Amino acid sequence: MTDTRFFRRAGPHSLGALAALTGARLVDPSTADRLIEDVAPLETAGPADATFLDNRKYTDAFMKSRAGAAFIAETLASRAPAGMALLISREPYKAFARAAQAFYPQSPVMPGRAPSAVVDPTATVPDNCAIGANVVIEAGARLGARCQVGPNSVIGPGVELGADCVIAANVTLSHCLIGARVVLHPGVRIGQAGFGFAPDAAGPVKIPQLGRVIIGDDVDIGANTTIDRGSGHDTVIGPGTMIDNLVQIAHNVVLGRGCILAGQVGISGSTKLGDYVMAGGQAGLAGHLNIGAGARIAAQAGLMKDVAAGETVVGTPAVPAIAFWRQVAMMQRLARKKDGG
Amino acid sequence: MTDTRFFRRAGPHSLGALAALTGARLVDPSTADRLIEDVAPLETAGPADATFLDNRKYTDAFMKSRAGAAFIAETLASRAPAGMALLISREPYKAFARAAQAFYPQSPVMPGRAPSAVVDPTATVPDNCAIGANVVIEAGARLGARCQVGPNSVIGPGVELGADCVIAANVTLSHCLIGARVVLHPGVRIGQAGFGFAPDAAGPVKIPQLGRVIIGDDVDIGANTTIDRGSGHDTVIGPGTMIDNLVQIAHNVVLGRGCILAGQVGISGSTKLGDYVMAGGQAGLAGHLNIGAGARIAAQAGLMKDVAAGETVVGTPAVPAIAFWRQVAMMQRLARKKDGG
Amino acid sequence: MTDTRFFRRAGPHSLGALAALTGARLVDPSTADRLIEDVAPLETAGPADATFLDNRKYTDAFMKSRAGAAFIAETLASRAPAGMALLISREPYKAFARAAQAFYPQSPVMPGRAPSAVVDPTATVPDNCAIGANVVIEAGARLGARCQVGPNSVIGPGVELGADCVIAANVTLSHCLIGARVVLHPGVRIGQAGFGFAPDAAGPVKIPQLGRVIIGDDVDIGANTTIDRGSGHDTVIGPGTMIDNLVQIAHNVVLGRGCILAGQVGISGSTKLGDYVMAGGQAGLAGHLNIGAGARIAAQAGLMKDVAAGETVVGTPAVPAIAFWRQVAMMQRLARKKDGG
Repeated sequence: MTDTRFFRRAGPHSLGALAALTGARLVDPSTADRLIEDVAPLETAGPADATFLDNRKYTDAFMKSRAGAAFIAETLASRAPAGMALLISREPYKAFARAAQAFYPQSPVMPGRAPSAVVDPTATVPDNCAIGANVVIEAGARLGARCQVGPNSVIGPGVELGADCVIAANVTLSHCLIGARVVLHPGVRIGQAGFGFAPDAAGPVKIPQLGRVIIGDDVDIGANTTIDRGSGHDTVIGPGTMIDNLVQIAHNVVLGRGCILAGQVGISGSTKLGDYVMAGGQAGLAGHLNIGAGARIAAQAGLMKDVAAGETVVGTPAVPAIAFWRQVAMMQRLARKKDGG
Repeated sequence: MTDTRFFRRAGPHSLGALAALTGARLVDPSTADRLIEDVAPLETAGPADATFLDNRKYTDAFMKSRAGAAFIAETLASRAPAGMALLISREPYKAFARAAQAFYPQSPVMPGRAPSAVVDPTATVPDNCAIGANVVIEAGARLGARCQVGPNSVIGPGVELGADCVIAANVTLSHCLIGARVVLHPGVRIGQAGFGFAPDAAGPVKIPQLGRVIIGDDVDIGANTTIDRGSGHDTVIGPGTMIDNLVQIAHNVVLGRGCILAGQVGISGSTKLGDYVMAGGQAGLAGHLNIGAGARIAAQAGLMKDVAAGETVVGTPAVPAIAFWRQVAMMQRLARKKDGG
Repeated sequence: MTDTRFFRRAGPHSLGALAALTGARLVDPSTADRLIEDVAPLETAGPADATFLDNRKYTDAFMKSRAGAAFIAETLASRAPAGMALLISREPYKAFARAAQAFYPQSPVMPGRAPSAVVDPTATVPDNCAIGANVVIEAGARLGARCQVGPNSVIGPGVELGADCVIAANVTLSHCLIGARVVLHPGVRIGQAGFGFAPDAAGPVKIPQLGRVIIGDDVDIGANTTIDRGSGHDTVIGPGTMIDNLVQIAHNVVLGRGCILAGQVGISGSTKLGDYVMAGGQAGLAGHLNIGAGARIAAQAGLMKDVAAGETVVGTPAVPAIAFWRQVAMMQRLARKKDGG
């Protein structure tokens, strides 16, 4: 059961309703009226909870689970403990996600402006926004309807936010235009000047950073991630892109639609990613590269060259996955041979 | 001598007192009454200061040091310059640490609440806490006795802190329960929603993140480190664990007791570390792994598989240290051979 | 054209004036009076804009550019489209930087102190400083002339800043002495206690961190970068050093003059870098190393040993560049051979 200090639950929902809203098939339709109270992980779910199995690594936990219902793929259904209601789905994780959203809908915005918020008179802040304590909104900034801004966040001069954005606490925004339904986690930094200078014997000559950051709709950006503004072109984050914590995105980087960047990824200046590129944690991309749509970049990979659309690359310097694993196998063989011989 | 703008010194302490409180043996007991005024590094210590030698790399500096006294291992005592009082210890660094604590005890909390702090009336904040300027403490939060909260930090709804916690400036806490004597450095982010979604052609389906972050007693977390709350299970940081700056800890990660994570380590979702695991800087751990108690993970290692208790692993993909160094030697040999012809 | 919501332009400037202030040679002196309105990238520049070509990768874009003028190396001048005024420079990027500074000079400081700023009566803040909303300046801090401090930043007790510093929003400073003209981007953390403790069965023994952070003139530090104070010695950042976002600098690290650290670099405790060392993104340096002046460290390199002055090192463990590339070539050859054979 979730901690009621932090979460407010809706429901209950019947198995039939959960099947309908997730597109899953309830194996035993006679149980369609049975009520489910909550969602929970395999290990802690009880008879009134729905759970899911997606990663085969957890099949043992599934077999022992006391959950009342589970979202699961057809092929694993036979492993279910007796009495568990099964909701068959080709994508059990996604079905579970939809069910969880039904139990924990986003709270409606509580409109208001904390007395300690400092809002410039030339800023546009609709009355249906929720502005937290000590928030600073500077001259000419414009917020869309129903935006939430957490305590101690700073929205710089001229910044624009679309409707329904959720800005957490201690966020800093400047020189950026942000779409609708964007979620920024605590400590995100967007729009500061990028790392731009020309080396010189008398000290580096700084280059005015004259671009912006343009963020599409439905983007989600993790805690303490940094996105520098462009130097002349803009830095662009495509709609639906998901960015994890502590990611670094340099000036002029362009991310397509629906990209996924795991924690601590770093992308150097002017590199462009097509749509739906995925990068694993701590991957690093050199500057001025083109990464094709749908490319997959392994965790900790180091990219120094362009990557073709759809390719999977691994290692530093990054090579196609098959070449990487061949090198690994070869090295292990040679090291063993030396040892044995 | 330390900068009195920033540090307040206690003392002096006699050599005898320092020996007693650190468990060191004073080589010349006739000097037990000699007073020491301060602690200092080898290079800057003077006749009234105590210093230490722990890393043999600094033996030359030790031989030239003007320090009045030094904590040192028996085996290196013969290298001491004439006139230096020697405090023999099997663990000179730890003995020095205890001496330094005697010269620089933690300042007592100065109770009070800055007039600009915004504290929800339903929050519990004992009078003996010190609440800095512009701090925001939200509904239902509960602080233990003698907690210190630095300026511009935000303590979210329902968050609980044990006694004697030190929260620095610009920290953000939500959805977490924190033990006693926990130290959080500036810019720490704890409890935000983790990176949880199921990919879908119509855009990622977000999964409500319904767990918490549970932090044990005596944990220390470095500047700008991020710890996401669990998705259903909790994210757990065991007691006595030390975490450096800019570390990323994803949802559902469990760290045992006394783990040590150096700067910029990243741990992906649902990975579990046993007690006393150590990870070097920039190491990256894939998700859903089990790392046994006492395992040691080298800096920049990339882990894709479980690690047995007590094992030391190096490289990407990480392998046992002996195999890694064998591979390195083999590669260097082959590259030389090719070169030589 | 830059977005006037965010940038204010000076000018126009004549081609002759631009040549004079950048040291470039105007190929057709008869155009010296032609006015240029703005600077812009190759792709978006129009007839009233100056642009530049520095990276040959963009020669195609240059050949299609509609820019009225371009800074360019002599060797590439023949590729210019007809009618473009050419400003020949051996260092076109630097020349462009100087021109851009002429169009976008730093805004003069608008002196003032936000009513919500909390400034301790014992702090020294000249009237010509600009102190943003909710800034906290603690006891004994001293700011130089014309410093700017962004909203929600915290300047701890005793901290000193030289003249003309620009501190962005949500920055945290403690235990540090900072030179003139230093720029700190949002979320920078300077001066917190480093990761210092001696392991012990009863829990780690913390070592009081008694040094400071000393930052030279003209240093630039990127968003969410962390710099811990020294443990006894100071942590030192030499003048003119440029540090990108999310960099970790541990206690007692010493950086020389004019170093350049790209995003997500990590430097462990007590490592010393000479003047003009460059480190690529995500490079990691072990503790207690000496890196000679002018050394170049590749992106993602992992350093476990000292590096001689002027050397270029690559890989983990880092080796001289020539050895690294030989190893890479050898591995690729062997992996192919195995495959083919």
